[in-house]
Amino acid sequence: MTASRYATTFLRCRFAGLVGLLAAAAVAPADDPPPFPFLLPEEKPEQPLSAAMERLYDQYESPTYRTNELFTAFRYTELTGLDYAGHDGTITRRDPSKVIAANGRYYVWYTRRHTTTPPRGAAAATDTIPSSDWDLSEIWYATSTDGFHWEEQGVAVPRPAKPHVGWRSVSTADILEWEGKYYLYYQGFLEVSGRRGDDCPVAVSVADSPDGPWTPTHKIVVPNGPEGSWDQYSIHDPYPLVYRGKIHLYFKSDFGLQPNLIRAQGLAIADHPLGPFRKHPLNPVINSGHETTLFPFREGIAAIVIRHGNEHDTIQYAPDGVNFSVASSVSMVPWAGGPFVPDAFTDTDTGRGITWGLSHFTSLGGPGKRHSILVRFDCDLSLDLEDRNLKNSEYGLPPEVYYRSKLNAAQRERIAEETQRVLEVAD
Amino acid sequence: MTASRYATTFLRCRFAGLVGLLAAAAVAPADDPPPFPFLLPEEKPEQPLSAAMERLYDQYESPTYRTNELFTAFRYTELTGLDYAGHDGTITRRDPSKVIAANGRYYVWYTRRHTTTPPRGAAAATDTIPSSDWDLSEIWYATSTDGFHWEEQGVAVPRPAKPHVGWRSVSTADILEWEGKYYLYYQGFLEVSGRRGDDCPVAVSVADSPDGPWTPTHKIVVPNGPEGSWDQYSIHDPYPLVYRGKIHLYFKSDFGLQPNLIRAQGLAIADHPLGPFRKHPLNPVINSGHETTLFPFREGIAAIVIRHGNEHDTIQYAPDGVNFSVASSVSMVPWAGGPFVPDAFTDTDTGRGITWGLSHFTSLGGPGKRHSILVRFDCDLSLDLEDRNLKNSEYGLPPEVYYRSKLNAAQRERIAEETQRVLEVAD
Repeated sequence: MTASRYATTFLRCRFAGLVGLLAAAAVAPADDPPPFPFLLPEEKPEQPLSAAMERLYDQYESPTYRTNELFTAFRYTELTGLDYAGHDGTITRRDPSKVIAANGRYYVWYTRRHTTTPPRGAAAATDTIPSSDWDLSEIWYATSTDGFHWEEQGVAVPRPAKPHVGWRSVSTADILEWEGKYYLYYQGFLEVSGRRGDDCPVAVSVADSPDGPWTPTHKIVVPNGPEGSWDQYSIHDPYPLVYRGKIHLYFKSDFGLQPNLIRAQGLAIADHPLGPFRKHPLNPVINSGHETTLFPFREGIAAIVIRHGNEHDTIQYAPDGVNFSVASSVSMVPWAGGPFVPDAFTDTDTGRGITWGLSHFTSLGGPGKRHSILVRFDCDLSLDLEDRNLKNSEYGLPPEVYYRSKLNAAQRERIAEETQRVLEVAD
Repeated sequence: MTASRYATTFLRCRFAGLVGLLAAAAVAPADDPPPFPFLLPEEKPEQPLSAAMERLYDQYESPTYRTNELFTAFRYTELTGLDYAGHDGTITRRDPSKVIAANGRYYVWYTRRHTTTPPRGAAAATDTIPSSDWDLSEIWYATSTDGFHWEEQGVAVPRPAKPHVGWRSVSTADILEWEGKYYLYYQGFLEVSGRRGDDCPVAVSVADSPDGPWTPTHKIVVPNGPEGSWDQYSIHDPYPLVYRGKIHLYFKSDFGLQPNLIRAQGLAIADHPLGPFRKHPLNPVINSGHETTLFPFREGIAAIVIRHGNEHDTIQYAPDGVNFSVASSVSMVPWAGGPFVPDAFTDTDTGRGITWGLSHFTSLGGPGKRHSILVRFDCDLSLDLEDRNLKNSEYGLPPEVYYRSKLNAAQRERIAEETQRVLEVAD
């Protein structure tokens, strides 16, 4: 205890005496447990605790978010170097892969749509008019030496000839490095997306270098599930990591019917990049999310769970890569984050976490010009970084941003009617 | 099954045949459990499930957020009728109470600071210069007949003469109606806030009508905890509800030392509004939050947990009012929300929830003009409302809002150094 803390304690004792004179007596039966201590114990204290305080010690990395390695704020920085045709909707870049470092530079792969028109919906789609933002797309790649300025290098995976898997569109790629070779996994569309839903399996291309050339296998490597199963129609957002000596490929599927579509994340495991992949028998392994970002963390796998589900906008952790629990609540999360994960392919059992990556902003440009752009995010989800600025749970938006969320006319009407009813009763 | 679903199933079977030809065989051992079904079961299916899917059914109101009565988006509307002296920092309104309906109108009480200068910190505080935004404040009230336009009615609880509790400042009031009388609970400062921390107990005033006059008891009704306990220095944000026949007063305390202050919520229970209040032996009952908004919900109590802690920005539920668990993850939550809670004081055991209230925006005006304003929020946390527009987990902010969160110079420098190191190794 420092001198100033001694002094503070002395003053507080005097003050407590004054309060005692003023106060109604506090009632605390003699058999009550001791009150919870003023200095938050680092380990769970041995005394009866509420469910919330039990959980604070049992569920989280640390009882405070400031030292919770799986809590972070996010910062966003606009990229330079990529052209979007004046944001007229004809060029989209979205769904970045993980970033890797090779040949003295960073690489990222992404869905690139360059069409004569913006997306026009499934009914209006043709061989050249896209239905969705990821229809009629290819996998392109870019490189960077600073992580902020990116130079587009060209196509990695073009659409193959019909009827090969992906002939309609190849999108939402992610990268795996395995025994000196590189593998790009991606959604291979065999039909216009949006007809029934957003239906596709996953295909893969192989290269000896991140610069390519990439050879498509023309095979479905992660197939849709059997009829009636949650993943019967779509395997989205393939995300491979090397874990416990095997390729762990996480994916999303959409299930249920519109307008109550459910999104969850599954896991498929293989001994070799070309499969066969075995779907985990406990799928889905994450009950929420979309375009999930994952990375090795300590002995397990961590995930950034976004957009949908009861557990959207959380970071989760599974010590076994399968049984995830919520590790923190986060705000303004990166969508479809493709982080730089130094130990993504090292089969680590002491994952160190991530500090940055690329993500995307979608639905920009307004009607008739819809497109998406890539953006950089930074965060502190790393055991090797201690950035207090990023352990801040307040996002500090001005009132104007809150006022954007306007009540609609129906809500205004409902409120007016309810007000009348309530105030009449209260009169 | 509708005709169109029959047709879809037929087409899918044909498609599945095609995929079978293209695909590497999926490996699914015969003893695997059946895959999770395509239509999300409303009740937990009897098959082995991942931890996440177990939790989806065990922990939440509903397995989807769209039908989760404790999930909501929030809408914000600027209030009219309240003057802020050109937002020069001399007038603050913050920390609204719950809204009640009486005498044909809505009432709200709040902290009002009207000082000759904006807050200047504890060291510069005098008898007329405030230390913090809630120093040298009074409890005022306003009324409304539509919930959007509010007319300030005057002071409800002025600062009492020294040395009565609250002589330095009275702030952060909340309202209780009990057996035909009204009780305002508030923070009663006996010193300048910010000297050690933000130290105060809770005091109470009584009236026969929400219009007053209010009679202060000049007693501490919820005292600080004993020395060394988590709530030894402060009882903040008193929030009374009638539950299980007693007054359940939830409160916040700050504990631990700067800059690692911890915030959590406690509960004190009394048979009568003037006490004695017994602190719950399992306190703290909520491990996160700040200015917590609570309301009766079904047989228990629900809470909007904001700003701080591992479980900030969540809605929580305790079927016994004590043992809270996370019921949803929410974004852009109202700070210090004071909702209209029709059954706050009816001792209900079937709480119906809330749809709107007032909250505040703080730290506006920039240096030298710091102040806070009241704002209206709307939401669907009610069993009596089904507003799909408010069951949306995406908040749709434009890129510009994300770009506000800039990297600072130290972060830029750290990133540049790390980039150099990483790319050298990868070369």
